[in-house]
Amino acid sequence: MHVFVPFDASEPKTRLSSVLDRAERREFATVMLDSVVETIEASGHDAKVLATAPIDCEAAVTVDGRPLTPAVNDVLSDAPMPAGVVMADLPLLSVRSLERLFGAAGDVVIAPGVGGGTNALVVDHDEFRVDFHGVSYEDHREIAQQCGASLTTVDSFRLALDVDEPADLGEVLLHDTGQVADWLVEHGFEIDGSDGRMTVERP
Amino acid sequence: MHVFVPFDASEPKTRLSSVLDRAERREFATVMLDSVVETIEASGHDAKVLATAPIDCEAAVTVDGRPLTPAVNDVLSDAPMPAGVVMADLPLLSVRSLERLFGAAGDVVIAPGVGGGTNALVVDHDEFRVDFHGVSYEDHREIAQQCGASLTTVDSFRLALDVDEPADLGEVLLHDTGQVADWLVEHGFEIDGSDGRMTVERP
Repeated sequence: MHVFVPFDASEPKTRLSSVLDRAERREFATVMLDSVVETIEASGHDAKVLATAPIDCEAAVTVDGRPLTPAVNDVLSDAPMPAGVVMADLPLLSVRSLERLFGAAGDVVIAPGVGGGTNALVVDHDEFRVDFHGVSYEDHREIAQQCGASLTTVDSFRLALDVDEPADLGEVLLHDTGQVADWLVEHGFEIDGSDGRMTVERP
Repeated sequence: MHVFVPFDASEPKTRLSSVLDRAERREFATVMLDSVVETIEASGHDAKVLATAPIDCEAAVTVDGRPLTPAVNDVLSDAPMPAGVVMADLPLLSVRSLERLFGAAGDVVIAPGVGGGTNALVVDHDEFRVDFHGVSYEDHREIAQQCGASLTTVDSFRLALDVDEPADLGEVLLHDTGQVADWLVEHGFEIDGSDGRMTVERP
């Protein structure tokens, strides 16, 4: 299956600017992208990066400077069905969680993200189109209904956890055993649970 | 299997005080408890509520005013193994997610919560004891290792989502189709995704 991985190559992860400078955010975003691409390849599928600008990456890269929604709809309309879309900021992604996503029955299979987004989906329906603005899980449910496509939701915390804010880095340090957690440790991040809640600090 | 459900009957869900008054928080906590108890019973197991004070509930209730950790360890040490513990504030809990928890192999099976907590676990080992303070998923991993118990983690967003803060109510409105979401709708809550992120409002 073709699995598209959209990637913001210009100004990624701005909500991490309180803990990472601009160069670090770009490097961290690239480490997450590489991790996602490798996991997709390890699951036996073809990762195809869809970047807003040229980048250096192990996978095939298509450059499209448009916003996420038209860029993804364009590649989906040309791809053999079923086709997948997996976000580039899912450091807890595992082969097993991808197998649950790719193996689920349904014209449209969605892994919702924390906060109402859509972190990954598989489309096997000619009329379905994505719309990533706002609470996109809700929108995708409606779009599926409007075009008569059955929709299945995959229940996975590993697929639900996208990295947007500093608190998300704690989840990576706690649950990831790969290159993304390694990068955070090398850059001085550690979990602080001393006040009863998990936060990250960079002493 | 005996499945214990700890419940704070005195001052539950204080972190929701910006959107719910004290009486509403108690009522909402009870609706969530009832939902968890019913889902455990529907999965074919015996829900046993462990409350800090007497409450009115469909399930058997044991009252223990001590903190969570000693109260749970006390009932676990007396219960036939395997025994389960499921938190009372998991409105997305489903029979299917519980089946994945109860059906997983391992001396200790844990469903981590968002933020590093432990939302549900199954214990089939005489020496394992819980410790719910701080980043308890990390602590439970260490305790299992210390007593030679194998540990399995269940990857489920439905088990990971506990309700602590107002943002969590959006997840309930988006993904729950039962009594907890109904209660929120009846009390005027709705999702607002107009600025691109999901928030809840009570107009």
